[in-house]
Amino acid sequence: MKIRPLHDRILVQRIEEEQRTESGIIIPDTAKEKPIMGKVIAVGDGRLLENGQRQPLTVKEGDKILFSKYAGTEIKIKGEEYLIMREDDVLAIIEE
Amino acid sequence: MKIRPLHDRILVQRIEEEQRTESGIIIPDTAKEKPIMGKVIAVGDGRLLENGQRQPLTVKEGDKILFSKYAGTEIKIKGEEYLIMREDDVLAIIEE
Amino acid sequence: MKIRPLHDRILVQRIEEEQRTESGIIIPDTAKEKPIMGKVIAVGDGRLLENGQRQPLTVKEGDKILFSKYAGTEIKIKGEEYLIMREDDVLAIIEE
Amino acid sequence: MKIRPLHDRILVQRIEEEQRTESGIIIPDTAKEKPIMGKVIAVGDGRLLENGQRQPLTVKEGDKILFSKYAGTEIKIKGEEYLIMREDDVLAIIEE
Amino acid sequence: MKIRPLHDRILVQRIEEEQRTESGIIIPDTAKEKPIMGKVIAVGDGRLLENGQRQPLTVKEGDKILFSKYAGTEIKIKGEEYLIMREDDVLAIIEE
Amino acid sequence: MKIRPLHDRILVQRIEEEQRTESGIIIPDTAKEKPIMGKVIAVGDGRLLENGQRQPLTVKEGDKILFSKYAGTEIKIKGEEYLIMREDDVLAIIEE
Amino acid sequence: MKIRPLHDRILVQRIEEEQRTESGIIIPDTAKEKPIMGKVIAVGDGRLLENGQRQPLTVKEGDKILFSKYAGTEIKIKGEEYLIMREDDVLAIIEE
Repeated sequence: MKIRPLHDRILVQRIEEEQRTESGIIIPDTAKEKPIMGKVIAVGDGRLLENGQRQPLTVKEGDKILFSKYAGTEIKIKGEEYLIMREDDVLAIIEE
Repeated sequence: MKIRPLHDRILVQRIEEEQRTESGIIIPDTAKEKPIMGKVIAVGDGRLLENGQRQPLTVKEGDKILFSKYAGTEIKIKGEEYLIMREDDVLAIIEE
Repeated sequence: MKIRPLHDRILVQRIEEEQRTESGIIIPDTAKEKPIMGKVIAVGDGRLLENGQRQPLTVKEGDKILFSKYAGTEIKIKGEEYLIMREDDVLAIIEE
Repeated sequence: MKIRPLHDRILVQRIEEEQRTESGIIIPDTAKEKPIMGKVIAVGDGRLLENGQRQPLTVKEGDKILFSKYAGTEIKIKGEEYLIMREDDVLAIIEE
Repeated sequence: MKIRPLHDRILVQRIEEEQRTESGIIIPDTAKEKPIMGKVIAVGDGRLLENGQRQPLTVKEGDKILFSKYAGTEIKIKGEEYLIMREDDVLAIIEE
Repeated sequence: MKIRPLHDRILVQRIEEEQRTESGIIIPDTAKEKPIMGKVIAVGDGRLLENGQRQPLTVKEGDKILFSKYAGTEIKIKGEEYLIMREDDVLAIIEE
Repeated sequence: MKIRPLHDRILVQRIEEEQRTESGIIIPDTAKEKPIMGKVIAVGDGRLLENGQRQPLTVKEGDKILFSKYAGTEIKIKGEEYLIMREDDVLAIIEE
């Protein structure tokens, strides 16, 4: 079974705090509600422009990303938790 | 009798929880109001772009989809419950 | 006398519940405020696009449609009740 | 003296209830706040599109129209009451 | 000294009620907050369209106009009161 | 050191009331919260249009302008107070 | 590890008050919530226009900028605090 997000949406799996700490990215205590790290599992085919073109997304499967805590909709697939959000909710890609 | 959704709207039938469980997609307890699975019964002829083109929809008849619980308008046809929603309310297509 | 709806507006006559029941479309009790069936009596000449083109409407005179209960403005012509609404308030066309 | 409405605005004179009754259009009691009949006295030169074109209005001087009760701004000219509204507030043209 | 309104803005001087009465335009008692007559003193160079063109304004210096009472920002120049508003706040031009 | 406002923003220095009085522009007592005079210190490189062009600003360095009291963000540079605002917050240019 | 902000977003590090004072830019006491100085650490690949072009950002890595105190989302990377914001939240670039 495969989840194919629609258009400008992406499927994301949260990266747990221990893993984040290793990567050196820490959410400050005074900003508990702030960005969260995740891994992109699947991406949509892009956003539709008014000229009829579909613009491919920038984030790719496997990317590690930062996103706002309130972004997206929660979903559980075969016991694993995921989020479906729009690419515009992604703040940044983390390259290692 | 056939229901033909208008433009970017689609006709959807909910998939019951037992069926969803089999497919491995479970809505977490802590997210009771979250996405719902459904089957696309009929689709509109597409969204009108400002250049006058009509953009065909991505979802097709027969697709299994995830959508937000609050999406769409309920309707009952020959004893069966359906929803009419916009394609933009669809989060993802589930491929098996 | 003829009512000519403007641009993307249409003139609609409600179809009574008895008739709807025959057609097999029932609004569930738990969704009393939900969609309503009607017949299109007249349509406007279309929506104006930003490129100056006027896009003809999809719904046609005589179409049976589903629309949201809160759509449109009520009007009484020669003792008969009608609604004037925008085409975007139409959820679907019912084909028989 | 002549009132020339600007762009997509029109000057309208209400048609009194007695006249409306003759024409067969009655506003139902249960919809007292609903549409009103009027006669178009003057029209603007059209709406400006983003491509720089000015799109002429559909309603013409002399047209009998239906419009929402809350549409427009009241004005009194030489003892007569008028309304200035946008063409988009016009629901339909009444042809006889 | 000259006030040059920016883009789609215009500089307007109110016409007092006595003058308005002569011209035959009276604001009804029941609509005290409604439109006001004024004279255009200066106009901007037009509205910028998305294609980069600047669309000249329709109202010209010297025009007598009707505008909503709440339109614009008050200003006093050499003891005289003026208003700066957008052309879209102008309801109509009065021709004599 | 130089402040370069971004895109459609401008850097403005307020002109004090004594100076304004000399120029003949007075903010009426009944409109205390109304427009304010200032001098343009620096301007951005223009607004980005949807066609990718950057539209240069109309106001230039050295222009005397009128703007709404609530426009912009305050900043102090080497002991002097300034405002950074968008060009669209400028009501008019004052030419002498 | 590198943070690559998405599209029109930028990664910014606040400049402390002592440093700001040296540069001559002081936030007035009466405007405590007002703009903040920062250094641009990384920039996205630009904003997507409706014609499918991606417009590169104006701010560059290393730029000293002014931005509104409420702009952006806080994040801590290897013990250092950063902000991710949109370029439109940048008020001005400071050149020395």
